[in-house]
Amino acid sequence: MAKELKELTTREENYSQWYNDLVVKADLAENSAVRGCMVIKPYGYAIWEKMQRQLDDMFKETGHVNAYFPLFIPKSFLSKEADHVEGFAKECAVVTHYRLKTNPDGTGVVVDPEAKLEEELIVRPTSETIIWSTYKNWIQSYRDLPILCNQWANVVRWEMRTRLFLRTAEFLWQEGHTAHATESEALAEARKMLDVYAQFSEEYMAVPVIKGVKSANERFAGAVETFCIEALMQDGKALQAGTSHFLGQNFAKAFDVKFVNKENQLEYVWATSWGVSTRLMGALIMAHSDNNGLVLPPKLAPFQVVIVPIYKSEEQLAAISEKVAQITTELKQLGISVKYDDSDNRKPGWKFAEYELKGVPVRLAMGARDLEHATVEIMRRDTLEKETVSFDGIAVHIQHLLDDIQTNIYKKAFDYRASVTREVNSYDEFKEEIEKGGFLLCHWDGTPETEERIKEETKATIRCIPLNGDKTPGKCMVTGKLSAQRVVFARSY
Amino acid sequence: MAKELKELTTREENYSQWYNDLVVKADLAENSAVRGCMVIKPYGYAIWEKMQRQLDDMFKETGHVNAYFPLFIPKSFLSKEADHVEGFAKECAVVTHYRLKTNPDGTGVVVDPEAKLEEELIVRPTSETIIWSTYKNWIQSYRDLPILCNQWANVVRWEMRTRLFLRTAEFLWQEGHTAHATESEALAEARKMLDVYAQFSEEYMAVPVIKGVKSANERFAGAVETFCIEALMQDGKALQAGTSHFLGQNFAKAFDVKFVNKENQLEYVWATSWGVSTRLMGALIMAHSDNNGLVLPPKLAPFQVVIVPIYKSEEQLAAISEKVAQITTELKQLGISVKYDDSDNRKPGWKFAEYELKGVPVRLAMGARDLEHATVEIMRRDTLEKETVSFDGIAVHIQHLLDDIQTNIYKKAFDYRASVTREVNSYDEFKEEIEKGGFLLCHWDGTPETEERIKEETKATIRCIPLNGDKTPGKCMVTGKLSAQRVVFARSY
Repeated sequence: MAKELKELTTREENYSQWYNDLVVKADLAENSAVRGCMVIKPYGYAIWEKMQRQLDDMFKETGHVNAYFPLFIPKSFLSKEADHVEGFAKECAVVTHYRLKTNPDGTGVVVDPEAKLEEELIVRPTSETIIWSTYKNWIQSYRDLPILCNQWANVVRWEMRTRLFLRTAEFLWQEGHTAHATESEALAEARKMLDVYAQFSEEYMAVPVIKGVKSANERFAGAVETFCIEALMQDGKALQAGTSHFLGQNFAKAFDVKFVNKENQLEYVWATSWGVSTRLMGALIMAHSDNNGLVLPPKLAPFQVVIVPIYKSEEQLAAISEKVAQITTELKQLGISVKYDDSDNRKPGWKFAEYELKGVPVRLAMGARDLEHATVEIMRRDTLEKETVSFDGIAVHIQHLLDDIQTNIYKKAFDYRASVTREVNSYDEFKEEIEKGGFLLCHWDGTPETEERIKEETKATIRCIPLNGDKTPGKCMVTGKLSAQRVVFARSY
Repeated sequence: MAKELKELTTREENYSQWYNDLVVKADLAENSAVRGCMVIKPYGYAIWEKMQRQLDDMFKETGHVNAYFPLFIPKSFLSKEADHVEGFAKECAVVTHYRLKTNPDGTGVVVDPEAKLEEELIVRPTSETIIWSTYKNWIQSYRDLPILCNQWANVVRWEMRTRLFLRTAEFLWQEGHTAHATESEALAEARKMLDVYAQFSEEYMAVPVIKGVKSANERFAGAVETFCIEALMQDGKALQAGTSHFLGQNFAKAFDVKFVNKENQLEYVWATSWGVSTRLMGALIMAHSDNNGLVLPPKLAPFQVVIVPIYKSEEQLAAISEKVAQITTELKQLGISVKYDDSDNRKPGWKFAEYELKGVPVRLAMGARDLEHATVEIMRRDTLEKETVSFDGIAVHIQHLLDDIQTNIYKKAFDYRASVTREVNSYDEFKEEIEKGGFLLCHWDGTPETEERIKEETKATIRCIPLNGDKTPGKCMVTGKLSAQRVVFARSY
């Protein structure tokens, strides 16, 4: 079968192949018949649903509502904001016709040349333009503000080199688009959503992140300021896990969205947008998993506990199943999700490997002898440690174990990141150190030219100018010019 | 302001305009800058989210899992199933290019002729083809079956005449796609999901439906049998609210999907697909609402209770708010959602009209005198009846009231339907009766020709051949030929 563990490439052999093997073999996603578009398989989608539900709750707690805007954007809309069109109009799916007809030669269908659109439609790569063209009708007065909308949607960016979850032509995401009466309120909103993303990443995904600001080169096309959270993968490469943009009045000006303020004067509206995508799945997988497969944080695992019976006869199975039903009830009362795998077409050893591959946080194995001794064998996925515990108080024991796993994998990722984050003071040292991966904290003179040069010579980019931490000025490692503070460099996904 | 009630056209004046006014003025949806595509506004989307959550729970309870398949379908896939291509390839959005470039004359962007796709991509009008091309890789043996997948997605059908929610070029829906080892299992699945839809419609939307089978003319393109639920709107027109298709082995044959059965023989896989869409929003609105606005069933209302304070001073407001906080806590403990509207820029009368327009099931108004007497005024939206009740036990009182409203609006819709459902025995009578609207139960000889003739002459179609009810044979009202049972005719949306 395709599921043999030996086929999972190890991280040491080839990290990139390990990642791809894992995504496919753990049934998370696969490539589709359409170039660059993936199929998200049920197990992968179940993790994404957990992420969605949690993020959606956090958005609603911070006062946001969901809405839905069109998939298509008229071509002319993209050109209305000068920077935006540069960033997004280049690689995108263009709808030019609205009808097919039977091929005159009788073979299949062809595009009907009569059915050409007057203006081409772009499949949304992001929705600022269509949303701000809509907000124009929603906003007249300061009383109509703020607008705090989010949408869950699919978007398309025609990427040439794609990788499952990390970079695909079509991906799923949420995009928040807010409108405000004042600059400070919009800025505060962009910062607030950055905090929501950081909290989600750390508390739910167990992935520590650095919060920061992008340099001008890396800024979202159309933004005044782009805030981001940056995570570190196990191969020492950075991954941008979420962005929150302060858009100033750029889109309000592009779409002529003004409001009457309290002083009865017409003013342009202030904007933010913020998004995270199925790319988070890539971060989740790469941050924690090992050569046996996925390691999922309990808070996002589709099921947190799997129970495997070990039996030689139907009578044994019946006795085990009865006990399992009891334990399952206790676990569910504590809000713990459980799968009991009593399928008879696989041996326990196969099941053990399968659930390790799928990253189920806790595995229980129960045989006839366990039943006799009123015990069960528990394995935790993060450390692969086993213990035998008594039935008595087992649900509470597992509840604590799940909390411990959640904390432990965060700590492991945090310690790893700490171990590969260091200050570098000269460009020579930088060139050496960047080969080892990790976050390098360096002084930089703040110019796009220097940043560009470093990128060309070392393939490293400024991941962000961190919001927290050391703010001591210094001298740029490349030019020796003044630097306001150290910034974070890394090679990245 | 645009929200004045007087601007809501009455049903008697112009039913179609009343519907459109209501959708726009109650902030449910509006037309967008893209022809045929709507914007679903936050209040409308909140209702859709309630529907989604409930349906999703029901799908999961019946063993289904969610997944996600690509937005795009290679043009050649559509031609693989002969009937399917006839039904779906005609009016669809066709992606022909993947890049824009700056217009040589410097004005905006134009399609880059160099970036033409080798094979055009179709924005999915439905996903049977892309999903069955995927299932081919998932299915080898009977052990891989059944596959019970659903996806929540957007789809595009290039409709020429669109109406908010009822018929839009892009719409949101769910589509279930299942694969089975036997014909009977697939048929049972199609029937099961029809029952799920009927239950959802009746218990949650409070819309009674007839379950039936479509005639060959009205069958889904590629299906062997299409099951449907048919609802009746207040203007006497029918609305197809959901369909569940038994696809036989048509798509398995088109995409060569075979499995090894228990007898070790290769066989084609059996399939179903089933879907409901944002069209349900149209059904919900049209089934219950009145000339004052929306009437929402409590089970799908974004908030079930609104509380409006009536005060002359800040002190009065403070005292009222204190009591309201107490009542709100009690209501929330019973799982009832509440909005307290203490905004000071609108008068109570304006708020009353606004929440009637938005169909909030229960409205509480509380003034200084109420506080004195420990009472509150309650209005139920369905009947507009008011009562004054004491604080004591108010939460439980409201809980019962909500149940009663849910039951009552279902009953009202049921009684209305019963009053306009009748047997008709001659074609002359039919031509007269169809003008009055409603469901006509008639004998039909079972031929597409007769059905076609009736449609041309009267604009009525066979909504379905009902699964339940009278199965007495008779004679076709048009041709006098043998009829197996009465079928349901109506004009429809």
